[in-house]
Amino acid sequence: MTDLDSRMKEIKLVIFDVDGVLTDNTVFIGPDGAEFKRFSIADGLGMHIARKHGIQIAFLSGRPSPATAIRARELGIADIVQEPVDKLTYYNRLKAKYELADDQIAFMGNDLVDLGVMHKCGLAAAVPDSPPEVLESAAYVSKKHGGFGAAREFLDVILEAKGINEKLA
Amino acid sequence: MTDLDSRMKEIKLVIFDVDGVLTDNTVFIGPDGAEFKRFSIADGLGMHIARKHGIQIAFLSGRPSPATAIRARELGIADIVQEPVDKLTYYNRLKAKYELADDQIAFMGNDLVDLGVMHKCGLAAAVPDSPPEVLESAAYVSKKHGGFGAAREFLDVILEAKGINEKLA
Amino acid sequence: MTDLDSRMKEIKLVIFDVDGVLTDNTVFIGPDGAEFKRFSIADGLGMHIARKHGIQIAFLSGRPSPATAIRARELGIADIVQEPVDKLTYYNRLKAKYELADDQIAFMGNDLVDLGVMHKCGLAAAVPDSPPEVLESAAYVSKKHGGFGAAREFLDVILEAKGINEKLA
Amino acid sequence: MTDLDSRMKEIKLVIFDVDGVLTDNTVFIGPDGAEFKRFSIADGLGMHIARKHGIQIAFLSGRPSPATAIRARELGIADIVQEPVDKLTYYNRLKAKYELADDQIAFMGNDLVDLGVMHKCGLAAAVPDSPPEVLESAAYVSKKHGGFGAAREFLDVILEAKGINEKLA
Repeated sequence: MTDLDSRMKEIKLVIFDVDGVLTDNTVFIGPDGAEFKRFSIADGLGMHIARKHGIQIAFLSGRPSPATAIRARELGIADIVQEPVDKLTYYNRLKAKYELADDQIAFMGNDLVDLGVMHKCGLAAAVPDSPPEVLESAAYVSKKHGGFGAAREFLDVILEAKGINEKLA
Repeated sequence: MTDLDSRMKEIKLVIFDVDGVLTDNTVFIGPDGAEFKRFSIADGLGMHIARKHGIQIAFLSGRPSPATAIRARELGIADIVQEPVDKLTYYNRLKAKYELADDQIAFMGNDLVDLGVMHKCGLAAAVPDSPPEVLESAAYVSKKHGGFGAAREFLDVILEAKGINEKLA
Repeated sequence: MTDLDSRMKEIKLVIFDVDGVLTDNTVFIGPDGAEFKRFSIADGLGMHIARKHGIQIAFLSGRPSPATAIRARELGIADIVQEPVDKLTYYNRLKAKYELADDQIAFMGNDLVDLGVMHKCGLAAAVPDSPPEVLESAAYVSKKHGGFGAAREFLDVILEAKGINEKLA
Repeated sequence: MTDLDSRMKEIKLVIFDVDGVLTDNTVFIGPDGAEFKRFSIADGLGMHIARKHGIQIAFLSGRPSPATAIRARELGIADIVQEPVDKLTYYNRLKAKYELADDQIAFMGNDLVDLGVMHKCGLAAAVPDSPPEVLESAAYVSKKHGGFGAAREFLDVILEAKGINEKLA
């Protein structure tokens, strides 16, 4: 068992940044201000499987967007913050709410605003194409890109480290 | 003639999973919950050609979406299910409705929820980038990606195995 | 001067198929049947330049879509047909309307339904990833993909063959 | 210090063309003429950081689009022009408004209509896949593509040349 594996075994809560992690870091903007985001079905299925096995999921975004709230509701995820607050503040609230230690919390980010939480949490992950500082702060860098299964991949390796081999069929 | 060719010759019904097979496995979500999906025109033309030659087409999705229903209606496809039911149940209903044997039914999927039907049907196909268990369960893995002609490619090889050489012009 | 160059010099009308040539061959479908298509700004600029130099532009699609009509209107292109008719019929009408010979008409397509016009017109072009029959029928295959500058590239090489070196700035 | 570095140190205003630079040069067109554009969150964060350090940002487009105005407003960018006027005219107005010399102004473009401003400004940049004339006129060609972080990359290298090492966390 690698050190990374043993750290993954401890994880009870996985927090995802939204733009660039659950999406490809773009927004589609229309004439009346309507904003669309593109989410991955594979990520959604991965979250469903993870929660079935007792792993909590939360979304943590610094940029408000109704599309993100709708996606969270669709997936049944209650913990979602979308406020231009310091992300670390919200991280600490989640940690207190679930009575967890840092070692039990994983976070996946993609940009400089995520560094605070990445340095604090027990297991920091990043998507490829993140800035160098972010990649260097990540214990796990996904092969898949944000919005195209990066979150699913991260949850899959955590489940595998825990010895959970989900076959849905 | 390869074994795969001879199995393709038997096919009378091709069932497609929707997300990840007829789309790139993403959804575009807007501020009021509007959900867009992206479908391939090439796939639509392939289904049109296949049906002209007596091959039935059905859509089988575990995730309800009005966009999928609209796409099916546009293509004149009557057999579409979008319910979070066990996919195998619906597979068996289709099999009974058309009075077919498993060997006469092909299915194309992309994720773990598709494994049940993939193991039951006569000819299982998958798109690339599916999880390993899905790829291992597929007799045919398309070169083209979901939403970008994977369904067209699968129908084309079935038609070719049947000796049907469609030139539409 | 190559043979292809000398044929390009004759061109007075360029007809574009829409899905797969002016788009990436996908449609975005929403809950109320709204259909979005994705068009290239580079293509639009290329058509603007070509028309400035006396080359007519027409759109020829077998699949009706309001988005295509809107894009044509935006670009000031009057000749647009979107009917599931035989494409050759409309080709012949355009040929008569402009009193042109086949050698003066170019067409860019991407799928089997385009073969009739491709075989008839003076200069047939195709986008990459077209089916083999289409690629074999094309005198010019663009490097750029449909919806990402394929039309612009085709117009640019025609203008270059005509000795027109547009510098817009 | 390279010559490019020393030129970047002088920059006080960065002007971005919109289509193809802040987007991937495509537009999504719907049935009622609604037009969506796709913008990069990474670009927005880069502009936020640059402005924090005293660099002005302006958008300069020859093609009117409400989506662009909405994106500019969201980012708090006041200088945006979207008129089919000669881009050089507007460049000169911005130069006068901010009382800058050409050497203090950078511009990033992607097509022939941008050449006038590119030749006049102190530091011209282009995205990859621009026409050869545009690439040849650029002192800096980004590795990232338009709409996928090209603007962020250009701002990052300017900030680096100025010795500004932003760590947002």
